[in-house]
Amino acid sequence: MTMEKGMSSGEGLSQISAVKVTAKDLETKQPQKDRRGGFVLVHAGAGYHSESKAKEYKHVCKRACQKAIEKLQAGALATDAVTAALVELEDSPFTNAGMGSNLNLLGEIECDASIMDGKSLNFGAVGALSGIKNPVSVANRLLCEGQKGKLSAGRIPPCFLVGEGAYRWAVDHGIPSCPPNIMTTSRVDSERETERKVFLFAVGSPSNGCRGRRIALIRRQEQGFSLAAFKRNKRKLELAERVETDFIQLKKRRQSSEKENDSGTLDTVGAVVVDHEGNVAAAVSSGGLALKHPGRVGQAALYGCGCWAENTGAHNPYSTAVSTSGSPFLASEDGVLGGVIVLRSCRCSAEADSSQNKQTLLVEFLWSHTTESMCVGYMSAQDGKAKTHISRLPPGAVAGQSVAIEGGVCRLESPVN
Amino acid sequence: MTMEKGMSSGEGLSQISAVKVTAKDLETKQPQKDRRGGFVLVHAGAGYHSESKAKEYKHVCKRACQKAIEKLQAGALATDAVTAALVELEDSPFTNAGMGSNLNLLGEIECDASIMDGKSLNFGAVGALSGIKNPVSVANRLLCEGQKGKLSAGRIPPCFLVGEGAYRWAVDHGIPSCPPNIMTTSRVDSERETERKVFLFAVGSPSNGCRGRRIALIRRQEQGFSLAAFKRNKRKLELAERVETDFIQLKKRRQSSEKENDSGTLDTVGAVVVDHEGNVAAAVSSGGLALKHPGRVGQAALYGCGCWAENTGAHNPYSTAVSTSGSPFLASEDGVLGGVIVLRSCRCSAEADSSQNKQTLLVEFLWSHTTESMCVGYMSAQDGKAKTHISRLPPGAVAGQSVAIEGGVCRLESPVN
Repeated sequence: MTMEKGMSSGEGLSQISAVKVTAKDLETKQPQKDRRGGFVLVHAGAGYHSESKAKEYKHVCKRACQKAIEKLQAGALATDAVTAALVELEDSPFTNAGMGSNLNLLGEIECDASIMDGKSLNFGAVGALSGIKNPVSVANRLLCEGQKGKLSAGRIPPCFLVGEGAYRWAVDHGIPSCPPNIMTTSRVDSERETERKVFLFAVGSPSNGCRGRRIALIRRQEQGFSLAAFKRNKRKLELAERVETDFIQLKKRRQSSEKENDSGTLDTVGAVVVDHEGNVAAAVSSGGLALKHPGRVGQAALYGCGCWAENTGAHNPYSTAVSTSGSPFLASEDGVLGGVIVLRSCRCSAEADSSQNKQTLLVEFLWSHTTESMCVGYMSAQDGKAKTHISRLPPGAVAGQSVAIEGGVCRLESPVN
Repeated sequence: MTMEKGMSSGEGLSQISAVKVTAKDLETKQPQKDRRGGFVLVHAGAGYHSESKAKEYKHVCKRACQKAIEKLQAGALATDAVTAALVELEDSPFTNAGMGSNLNLLGEIECDASIMDGKSLNFGAVGALSGIKNPVSVANRLLCEGQKGKLSAGRIPPCFLVGEGAYRWAVDHGIPSCPPNIMTTSRVDSERETERKVFLFAVGSPSNGCRGRRIALIRRQEQGFSLAAFKRNKRKLELAERVETDFIQLKKRRQSSEKENDSGTLDTVGAVVVDHEGNVAAAVSSGGLALKHPGRVGQAALYGCGCWAENTGAHNPYSTAVSTSGSPFLASEDGVLGGVIVLRSCRCSAEADSSQNKQTLLVEFLWSHTTESMCVGYMSAQDGKAKTHISRLPPGAVAGQSVAIEGGVCRLESPVN
């Protein structure tokens, strides 16, 4: 995975000014015997999460974990559980995925999403998809259809569809369409949502004073907020382009602060799941960059970039699932801004239980980010509710040049087959 | 690279029934002192190339090599040289890339292409692109624009664009559009071209008798050939879908022979280049699967899948460039059908020349395929003309379960900086 590579390379280590490692051992009690087990780890974006919105982000992570665990307990596939978590994250107007995603240069929402099944290594993805509320559902359906084998006349089924073709495929497969204006304007309900939307589209200097003024302006508007914000910021962009002469523009291009844009650009959401049999799945979904060019596809849609899942094999005792946030193509950037969630699991018979026909699945998990903060949630089928957390870089650490790593261990017990 | 992995894995080795290795040492004489050096390796598709069409494929490979070498000799970037080779391959109606690409289910051409610069590690790609004669030119332009740094207001430039958005970006950047009917019907000129088009779209049993009858039918048509062939084969597909009952269809889905479809599906073209300074670049372009779903994007457009280029670095004495053909997502397929071209180069001072202010660039190159055949061409700036070759699996070897590997070595001399 590109993010892993970036963060663990020898060259990168010299830039790491702070590393925070917290081990949380989540050893839990006996599982409920009538239900299947499993574990899920989700994140609602690596970027910047203000204290004022922390509660909202934690809440959506908690709901996403619960949805995945409900699926696992009902015996669903790991891919269906990870999809359920992503649907919840996409439906939140606070995340840059699905409903309320960033708007592109034309004021449209175009989403990327992908999913991978660790058992079959099958993959499904959509890119630059408009008009569908839950892009991850289309990615999962592509994965499912791909697992059925070839189409009539020996045709290979698609696993990655983009744009209008992806939309058509989804509708043809019974996935309902969603009017673009509903996806765009869903954040007018609360002042908090309004505030975030402004922040996402703040292409000028994001000083507090300036931001406060914009929020006051917006509060007067009741409807069509996203579009109004888009138009206002588009005008700002056009003004910036006029003001920046060729020379200044070239200079600014290379010097422009990541903070101006990236706090709104890295809100990719993701989830990783392991079921009681040790099958893993991973998924990722993103609305992409604010004011991106129409048709732009980011890493969330790309094989081997946005997510990876691989069950234990002959040469590998671990099942592994990874979901990333950030851009793998920014080789020339000074700092790498991104985040990652990872889990790996292996079977091990606990000594005390070896006589009781039970086997323990050891699940190690971690989240890591070079952005200022990352909101995560995790839950096992043995837990009553999900744990949520906003991980932050230590005080004084510089985003893009520092990395925070936190994680834990969870033991799941399941009957021996 | 996925193809490399597939072909060199321990599990795969048991399936390899034949390995052919041919080393061709191309040590050449002194370079022309007034011109810059370099080396190019191209391929016009891994699939099935009949003896009757061998000449055409070799000819386009030769022209592609010459175009790249002309660029290198003129001091162009490795990325511009590799683009020049790809443009030539795309312009041929015999390859499944650019002009005359496979048609999708709606009878449209949608192309994928990508390019990577080994010096900057920058990447450019387009997917499901219609209406542009040379998709690789758009990919190269995306790469070039990406290397200029951020856009106004700190926006990150796109490196992967798809569909309508990719088309708009290309036209906005001065790349001329090409009417779809010109790209579709360009093969009516010669009988040979007609024959190939029929073969590409033969979704029924490709027996000689049947094929001959179809060709006879087509010869009566003078205009709009591709569209007619598409409509005829679409009808066959619909008939096949009616005839195949649920049970039979499911069975056929899993059993359908690769030969029915893949001889027309793996005609991705690619090139790898090293310039006289050791900078490498790689590119790939494909029209994708015949009768694919609109919006389908294949590996030719995907980062880390279709091509890779990486200059020598602190921990790596070799510059490496790779271009692949085949699908990385077919984890469940019985056999892996694909091809790859690779070059790697390193600086080494030849003993005799160390006193003459000259340095030798050692270039090792190879092509490998699991398909029945692969047409390649290669040339150094010191050669008068390109060498071309159609590599075939040894007699009796089964496509998808056997691999052919051939390659050579080339020494380029250049003045010490």
